Amino acid sequence: MSAALGGWASAGHVTAVRVTPIAFRDPPLLNAAGIHEPYALRSIIELETSTGLVGLGESYGDTEMLADLNATAPQLIGLDPFLLNDLQLRVERSVSNRAQRGLSLAPGTHGDKATLKVLSAFEVACYDLMGQALGHPVCDLLGGKVRDEVPYSAYLFFKYAEHLGSPYAADSWGEAVTPEQLVAQARRMIGEYGFESIKLKGGALDPDLEAAGVRALAAAFPGMPLRIDPNANWSLDLATRLGKELGSLLEYYEDPTPTLEGMAELHRRTGLPLATNMVVTTQEEFRRNVQLNGVQVLLSDHHYWGGLRATQQLAQMCRVFGLGLSMHSNSHLGISLMAMTHLAASVPNLTYACDTHYPWQEEEVIVGGKVTITGGAVRVPDRPGLGVTLDRGALERLHQQYLDCGIVRRDDAAQMRRYDPGFTGELPRYREEAKG
Amino acid sequence: MSAALGGWASAGHVTAVRVTPIAFRDPPLLNAAGIHEPYALRSIIELETSTGLVGLGESYGDTEMLADLNATAPQLIGLDPFLLNDLQLRVERSVSNRAQRGLSLAPGTHGDKATLKVLSAFEVACYDLMGQALGHPVCDLLGGKVRDEVPYSAYLFFKYAEHLGSPYAADSWGEAVTPEQLVAQARRMIGEYGFESIKLKGGALDPDLEAAGVRALAAAFPGMPLRIDPNANWSLDLATRLGKELGSLLEYYEDPTPTLEGMAELHRRTGLPLATNMVVTTQEEFRRNVQLNGVQVLLSDHHYWGGLRATQQLAQMCRVFGLGLSMHSNSHLGISLMAMTHLAASVPNLTYACDTHYPWQEEEVIVGGKVTITGGAVRVPDRPGLGVTLDRGALERLHQQYLDCGIVRRDDAAQMRRYDPGFTGELPRYREEAKG
Ligand SMILES: [Mg+2]
Ligand SMILES: [Mg+2]
Repeated sequence: MSAALGGWASAGHVTAVRVTPIAFRDPPLLNAAGIHEPYALRSIIELETSTGLVGLGESYGDTEMLADLNATAPQLIGLDPFLLNDLQLRVERSVSNRAQRGLSLAPGTHGDKATLKVLSAFEVACYDLMGQALGHPVCDLLGGKVRDEVPYSAYLFFKYAEHLGSPYAADSWGEAVTPEQLVAQARRMIGEYGFESIKLKGGALDPDLEAAGVRALAAAFPGMPLRIDPNANWSLDLATRLGKELGSLLEYYEDPTPTLEGMAELHRRTGLPLATNMVVTTQEEFRRNVQLNGVQVLLSDHHYWGGLRATQQLAQMCRVFGLGLSMHSNSHLGISLMAMTHLAASVPNLTYACDTHYPWQEEEVIVGGKVTITGGAVRVPDRPGLGVTLDRGALERLHQQYLDCGIVRRDDAAQMRRYDPGFTGELPRYREEAKG
Repeated sequence: MSAALGGWASAGHVTAVRVTPIAFRDPPLLNAAGIHEPYALRSIIELETSTGLVGLGESYGDTEMLADLNATAPQLIGLDPFLLNDLQLRVERSVSNRAQRGLSLAPGTHGDKATLKVLSAFEVACYDLMGQALGHPVCDLLGGKVRDEVPYSAYLFFKYAEHLGSPYAADSWGEAVTPEQLVAQARRMIGEYGFESIKLKGGALDPDLEAAGVRALAAAFPGMPLRIDPNANWSLDLATRLGKELGSLLEYYEDPTPTLEGMAELHRRTGLPLATNMVVTTQEEFRRNVQLNGVQVLLSDHHYWGGLRATQQLAQMCRVFGLGLSMHSNSHLGISLMAMTHLAASVPNLTYACDTHYPWQEEEVIVGGKVTITGGAVRVPDRPGLGVTLDRGALERLHQQYLDCGIVRRDDAAQMRRYDPGFTGELPRYREEAKG
């Protein structure tokens, strides 16, 4: 790190951009889309500056995202990391050029969303640089923390004991396909991390078994806020029945059924607070939700909303339109966790415990290994920038693992077809028509 | 100014807060509320820090605003000017305490709005401090400028030649109560400042005379964007008729008729783009406008939307909800003009020329006197902070003028009653029912 900490000029300008795909071991966690593959992918972003600082970011590692990141990288040479409007223009130009040439975009995504993902990945690295240059934590650049620690929820999964074919030694969590096993998972996770709320990933097993899991958790942890997220795998009528059965136990009911219209109808039928990271993921969908009142709680995610600043703006929109605010997670490592933590610390109306897959990850890419979670929360660091440093040995190892594992695009359904050749991943898999 | 420019720490913490009410000469400009008084009021804000920097702000100077500013001032001692979330908490606490004790709030305003006005006044001074400390212009702290100069519009007024009782020598603009005089005013203002769009303050004289003024301006300046703002002084049917008559000449039609519902009905009847700084001035009204589609263009104003950061968030909301964005002004001096300019320079979707009363003001409170407007635009300065310094002699003079003038609260209607004892200021004064 440069000795010249303390001034804007000490951030310098960007002289090198590195995008390194990595793969890390991921347990066989079940969800509506299938099952997690043995390795999860991420991209690790480094912005190096003329003053010798290195700003870090972490984002998706699918092949399309990597292509967008790599195509944008050369456009960032010369960037002043403080000038986020300039960053945005450079990213927009690069991604829209590629989209026009048909070079970009995963199936089902559109140019706007690709732009925002790429912007976010680099924007976090810029904030890390700003913070390092000024000798302040990133949260201070977002107006300062309004809380000293950021609470996360215990993110429970139904899961198998190990991956098919035993690509590596089984994780220590064991199988969880019954309510009893789920409660045991919760006890261990809460015991180790001190979480004070629970999120259950549903949509994986028989819905009534999952409902029994919710009831077992509520009985084992009375009064603890509890959510279930079936990822749109339940038909409207099924989601209605289970919503009525479980509603009094739930803090919110996350994406039980597909489409904004479906969620709106479910809310009319049940009155339950519905949450999403599926049907409101763009500004256009935000606008439609204001009309339809499909969801009442939004799970933000700076990785696709356009970065930390854009997520603060989203938080303000939630305040204006009376939406609750929570935070979504994918499988991620410590750089993302710290970005999430600095952001959450700066947003007054982020009043729900955030999601994180972090307890499921054993490997790390930062110096010192895994970030500490105590009392269910991550303490906002006082160190400059994000407060984490890249472990170059670990980066190399996880990059080699990326090259070796052969996975280039997350595909939970394909992985599930290895267990169940007929599995399609089509939603909703669990259907039930209301009687009478 | 401190020699220690260049680092966050060189901003220090707030050690003194000064709020100085000033009065400056203001021409007898006519509007729906009556007529401008001989003196306009402002408050000049100074935040002095432990490192010897002084950050400037400028806001309203009415007695209620001064009371709120002065009550909040002691709460800011010790503030790190970078930590805007802390600033916001301190302001909220102070203003809501006063509101609860019944000490605050002008008639018709509510606590939220008072908070946002006070926040804004101090927030601009914090941005000035941040910029000075880091050696960068304020726009850079807002993500960087997306334009090098900010266009303003020629703000035309119907007016009298001088104030009743000749409190001081008449201004050089002369009378404007006919279309010919209005065109002459426009020619001079455009000649001197190079404005490339025109805003006419209406709602003051007979509506058909004002409409003739619009036609005369359109004929004299063909193709130049043109707006009229009757400040809700026309009944719905009158606004409908004149909208149909003038619509093809107008860039947008600003607050012709009262209430959001009235504007929505007017839009349904005419299809014209309607603009406002009257019926959407709070987040709640923004939300209602999304439902009602009352206006299609919002005139932002950082003085009451909560500051520069909040106005950037508002701009983002306008983008999301498909609203055009322009900028409102009251009578103001150079500190406000520079804050408006840095803000506007950083907002991509602020695509309309901003309003400013600035050409009507002869006095100044900043070193070097009046800010230059050329080609109808203010160049975004590269100097640190807002780029202006307080002229202490001028401040003292204008403060003495405040003490001497006896005005403590703007009251255009009372001033108009000196000409017309029956004047009430009730809106809409000009009514007409549609025939058939
Ligand atoms: Mg979810
Ligand atoms: Mg107006």
